[in-house]
Amino acid sequence: MQTTTLAMDKGGVELGSNLLSGVSLPAAVVHEGPLTHNVAWMQRFADAHGAYLAPHGKTTMAPALFQRQLQAGAWGITLATAPQCRAAYANGVTRLIMANQLVGQANMAIIASLLEQGATFYCVVDSQENVSQLGRFFAERGLTLAVLIEVGVPGGRCGCRSKQQILSLAEAIANEPALSLAGLEGYEGVVHGDNPETCVRAYAKQLVEVAVELEAAGRFSEANPMVTASGSAWYDVIAEAFDGAPLQGRFTPVLRPGCYVVHDHGLYREAQSAVLKRRPDLQQGLEPALEVFAQVQSLPEPELAIVALGKRDIGHDQFPIALQRFREGSELSHPLSVAGWEVTKLMDQHTFVRLPEAAQDVEVGDIVAFGASHPCLTFDKWRQLLLVDDKLNVKEHLATYF
Amino acid sequence: MQTTTLAMDKGGVELGSNLLSGVSLPAAVVHEGPLTHNVAWMQRFADAHGAYLAPHGKTTMAPALFQRQLQAGAWGITLATAPQCRAAYANGVTRLIMANQLVGQANMAIIASLLEQGATFYCVVDSQENVSQLGRFFAERGLTLAVLIEVGVPGGRCGCRSKQQILSLAEAIANEPALSLAGLEGYEGVVHGDNPETCVRAYAKQLVEVAVELEAAGRFSEANPMVTASGSAWYDVIAEAFDGAPLQGRFTPVLRPGCYVVHDHGLYREAQSAVLKRRPDLQQGLEPALEVFAQVQSLPEPELAIVALGKRDIGHDQFPIALQRFREGSELSHPLSVAGWEVTKLMDQHTFVRLPEAAQDVEVGDIVAFGASHPCLTFDKWRQLLLVDDKLNVKEHLATYF
Repeated sequence: MQTTTLAMDKGGVELGSNLLSGVSLPAAVVHEGPLTHNVAWMQRFADAHGAYLAPHGKTTMAPALFQRQLQAGAWGITLATAPQCRAAYANGVTRLIMANQLVGQANMAIIASLLEQGATFYCVVDSQENVSQLGRFFAERGLTLAVLIEVGVPGGRCGCRSKQQILSLAEAIANEPALSLAGLEGYEGVVHGDNPETCVRAYAKQLVEVAVELEAAGRFSEANPMVTASGSAWYDVIAEAFDGAPLQGRFTPVLRPGCYVVHDHGLYREAQSAVLKRRPDLQQGLEPALEVFAQVQSLPEPELAIVALGKRDIGHDQFPIALQRFREGSELSHPLSVAGWEVTKLMDQHTFVRLPEAAQDVEVGDIVAFGASHPCLTFDKWRQLLLVDDKLNVKEHLATYF
Repeated sequence: MQTTTLAMDKGGVELGSNLLSGVSLPAAVVHEGPLTHNVAWMQRFADAHGAYLAPHGKTTMAPALFQRQLQAGAWGITLATAPQCRAAYANGVTRLIMANQLVGQANMAIIASLLEQGATFYCVVDSQENVSQLGRFFAERGLTLAVLIEVGVPGGRCGCRSKQQILSLAEAIANEPALSLAGLEGYEGVVHGDNPETCVRAYAKQLVEVAVELEAAGRFSEANPMVTASGSAWYDVIAEAFDGAPLQGRFTPVLRPGCYVVHDHGLYREAQSAVLKRRPDLQQGLEPALEVFAQVQSLPEPELAIVALGKRDIGHDQFPIALQRFREGSELSHPLSVAGWEVTKLMDQHTFVRLPEAAQDVEVGDIVAFGASHPCLTFDKWRQLLLVDDKLNVKEHLATYF
């Protein structure tokens, strides 16, 4: 009775099915065209800036997407936790950056096992305490752990707050035989200020300067040490900072955007507009590839639709946006209007939509495609997403490992 | 490479492990003592009020918990969607209430398959359109679908808004040979007003009156038709309304609380206080059974701890609450203080905690148990939770099917 099959989760569906007939909804969908575009676009961007790409895999935790990113030229995959690294490695990802502190004996044991299996692995450190914990753990196992010092900002998240801390930490790492200092890491997404662009540029400059100083002091264990930063909002600014004389030919610059792979209909769409304003030469930018399809289940009052879609199905940092509507069983070429549809409330399994007075043609069962923001918190609601072609036929199951 | 094992998800852990040493954190934990107490407590409550219990399974989607609820005397399990019903049935639940409209051909096909396999199944209807869709679908398959009319409230969620609508819908159901009207359904959780208790009592009274009227009109297809309502906040008021002369011996009253099974540290704790204030005779109430354990990963500033716990690990309708702290590898009998700890921000994989000035003993790696609200949105972050005994040893994996 306790067998686990995909068909027992909400996403079970046969390949070849069409989203407008015969797929159990709600279902999370990745459109192959925009996906392919985005994967190639960001790789071209990194290449053009002399940077390596290690897309943040936490966004999707979908190994089939990791493989597309690697096949397009990605240098590795970034992850957030030890179990995520384990899942990625088990699915063929051999070069992993854990852009996070490795904490806890059990998590260290997961990584030790990956190292023993041959993984190339980096994690970040920002405290003497963690350095000595890691040093002890990996020394006892006769393993060497490559670490990156995390450079933070006051009021930010993790990371050293001063150059003095960074230099002391480099010394502490040098005193741990089981650790090797492989580079520097930062995340500009937690940098805030009145003028964000100025702050991010200053932060990127600081990363570069500290990297150069540590290299001059002989603190790195590798030739071409890594310098890595960037989410999906400021990758252009980071790439420009890494693409200058101080790092060229002497460092390994690595960009780690994650959300770009499917982009979104909210926060990152706005961020992308800002990128294209800063960098009009980039021309056609990223395209949203992720949607959740759901059905109207009730029309209990004249201007109210209740849709069978909830917090368990879609990211809800912002309310989902109704993008398209179809009658079930109809053709893709016959979309119905969602003009004026406004999501007003989201419960665990229900979405409230305020309809415009004119929306007289809505029926129970109508299929609505919703866009969301941000993508990470939609992916983690699903054990599999559906990769669809431009006719909304299901081409592939994208299994996730959260 | 594409094999799916539990060890590839974040929750993989060996039975017998202790949460304070050797379990990869974060991990979601159900404490067996409070769980057992809650399961028995609510069953006693239902029994004492002459009601059947069909706990809402959407809360946990953990069949091992469904089995505990059924073994304690539950009449059936309530679910929210067709795939949830499929998962419950595949795990041995044979009597299912889907407290939601059944919409879409693929979802209808899932339920048709359950009926063909022998499931006892009820879903709700609130529109002529849905009634005719269901009537057509199930007639074509030679099956009979038992439906409950949903009674809503103006400004609420789904459900008929007037008695006239209910009577018309009953007539429409009578005209569909493949449908049988098995009772009435409501959900008082969406009833709002200046005096919520008065509104909920009025709503419960309305449910009873309409049920009696429909019965008198011969609209129900079964002897002892079902009348069902109640979440985990107003179950006492609903039970009292169902436990009167109008329904006794002639109807099947069914309560459907879900969150009670693990209770919580927020919304439902407050709701439970209100229940016990209304009903001091109930004495010792529910106990919180669900926690998420995580580790401090960084102490980047004097009064700031960053914990490796995020929106992907714990419900975040409210900020999580730090309940207990331990040094990794220490004994349960040596808890450390979390007095004054305050969660100020939650990101996908990180929690920001403001520490009191006095918190000088915090170390990277410290294990912190967090309480959350509400439980449904913590369960769905995990493919398995860990059932632990009072020594925090892992006794059982609670697999979930979202």
